[in-house]
Amino acid sequence: MTTNPMLTIDGLQYSNWSREIFEQMREGGVNAVHATLVYHENTRETLSRFGDWHRRFEQHADLIMPVYEPADIERARDSNRVGVFFGAQNCSPIEDDIDMVAVMRRLGLLIMQLTYNNQSLLATGCYEANDPGITRFGRQVIEEMNRVGMIIDMSHSSERSTLEAIELSRRPVIISHANPASFHPAKRNKSDEVLKALADSGGLLGFSVYPFHLKDGPDCTLESFCNMVADTAELMGVDHIGIGTDLCQGQPQSVLDWMRNGRWSKEMDFGEGNKSNAGWPAPLEWFRDNRDFPNLISGLRQKGFAVTDIEKIMGRNWLHQLTQGTPAES
Amino acid sequence: MTTNPMLTIDGLQYSNWSREIFEQMREGGVNAVHATLVYHENTRETLSRFGDWHRRFEQHADLIMPVYEPADIERARDSNRVGVFFGAQNCSPIEDDIDMVAVMRRLGLLIMQLTYNNQSLLATGCYEANDPGITRFGRQVIEEMNRVGMIIDMSHSSERSTLEAIELSRRPVIISHANPASFHPAKRNKSDEVLKALADSGGLLGFSVYPFHLKDGPDCTLESFCNMVADTAELMGVDHIGIGTDLCQGQPQSVLDWMRNGRWSKEMDFGEGNKSNAGWPAPLEWFRDNRDFPNLISGLRQKGFAVTDIEKIMGRNWLHQLTQGTPAES
Repeated sequence: MTTNPMLTIDGLQYSNWSREIFEQMREGGVNAVHATLVYHENTRETLSRFGDWHRRFEQHADLIMPVYEPADIERARDSNRVGVFFGAQNCSPIEDDIDMVAVMRRLGLLIMQLTYNNQSLLATGCYEANDPGITRFGRQVIEEMNRVGMIIDMSHSSERSTLEAIELSRRPVIISHANPASFHPAKRNKSDEVLKALADSGGLLGFSVYPFHLKDGPDCTLESFCNMVADTAELMGVDHIGIGTDLCQGQPQSVLDWMRNGRWSKEMDFGEGNKSNAGWPAPLEWFRDNRDFPNLISGLRQKGFAVTDIEKIMGRNWLHQLTQGTPAES
Repeated sequence: MTTNPMLTIDGLQYSNWSREIFEQMREGGVNAVHATLVYHENTRETLSRFGDWHRRFEQHADLIMPVYEPADIERARDSNRVGVFFGAQNCSPIEDDIDMVAVMRRLGLLIMQLTYNNQSLLATGCYEANDPGITRFGRQVIEEMNRVGMIIDMSHSSERSTLEAIELSRRPVIISHANPASFHPAKRNKSDEVLKALADSGGLLGFSVYPFHLKDGPDCTLESFCNMVADTAELMGVDHIGIGTDLCQGQPQSVLDWMRNGRWSKEMDFGEGNKSNAGWPAPLEWFRDNRDFPNLISGLRQKGFAVTDIEKIMGRNWLHQLTQGTPAES
């Protein structure tokens, strides 16, 4: 069914999940995916998103299975299914309640961003004008996330908050989906200083193929993308990079509006777009959907990466992050 | 530390949990306890009750541990700790949402009552004047509880609803804490018809030592209690009975008021008591707290039960119920 025998883990998607997409994942050789569970949903609403996934696991038990611990990824692979592990793009699932960290972890939330673009109760987002760093509550939550084995993701956070989170956390921090700002300057892309600190912490950067994060946008070539990967491997080390496509396959405009606006604004916020470019960006030619993961492997081969390094980038580094970052509960 | 080497499982408590009580449990030889998590709490509030327990597990890791699957009871026993498994005395944790059954099961809710004294969205409570039986939503929830492995408990339900739940459920149903009405007529005690149907379903009755459920109330003797056990063993078979003390050690009056009134009444409801007897009943002389489990064993020996039957009553039958009723999630 797949022409991609390499362990492949996508470090972020928020697709409009369907049987068709799960089949495409298998076709593209995706063994596991970090699925965004929520953007702005509160604690109660987050439970309903878990409910949606329980239904999917029941209805598509032949194609997908939940990943509650890293070993489930191997189980998924052995049974020719896609393992799904969960992350929140914001800290809204825990509201103002430190106890909800352990509750969400028990439910299967393995990863949580401390903020999504805006200031949160924990940290500052990358769209804010000022970044006062990690808050008092944020320090408590970082310690609790470390304790229960929930990985800290700073993809949508700002510079100072990210550096402080890396400093405060006893465990490696990740940026599941972003690119180096040196490749393409965007609010969502990361400085060399952040990327080096991330690597020093033992963490990981997942490269995004979301056109707003790429040089030349939807026209970015596979060669250009792979040059960026090579430059970043140079900067961070090949053990600290992976893939986090940020693929939002089949999502309607209403979902993009929810991601950008949640309940926080009465005016329309256009995020990385603008009023005359408010919609989803056109997809890359060489990465239209989950069937195109083999193109990434080809591109990295073309660029001259060794097979063992490509294996790390395509999935092994992600598996290592999960293994060290989400130990089984004691 | 304990003089009770027999596997001992208490099928219901709602004590005012503290280090002292956990130590008394070890002293009394209690290996596992079905702890009531909530009475009237909604979904969000139920998460905070789980949060309270996560803190207790962290603070008293030398004394207690969570039971997420039946094998955890043996792990608790091997490490000289008390295993705690969770049940809800009402269906309030799932609100009106079928998806919350699987969510609560994943969090560790192994047992749920379909109703607590009053009519619920699922079934009728034992204090209602009319009992129309299991509702439309109730039928869906019973099927879902069967699917995910959450045990149906009808302790506070009325006659017809209980018989219908037993009929509808593919898995055994339990009554975790009550006594036969033939021993003491009380709204909370159960008819022989219900008890026989329960046994036929493969289920279990946990005997209560709550004085309102006993002949002669706080003056009920151990001998009288053990006669009741013997009579019920005759009726149901010795494989279908256990202990469910309903011990509410150290709880203040406000908790009794919450149990009885929740948010449903502006007038004070006195439950099994009355205006001139509104408080907690005086405890039995031979069962003051968790240290008195060995008295139950002595009483049953005195009554002439074989040791293997006492083992079943004190814990083995409960372990069997959990093993058959809460299979690991697929």
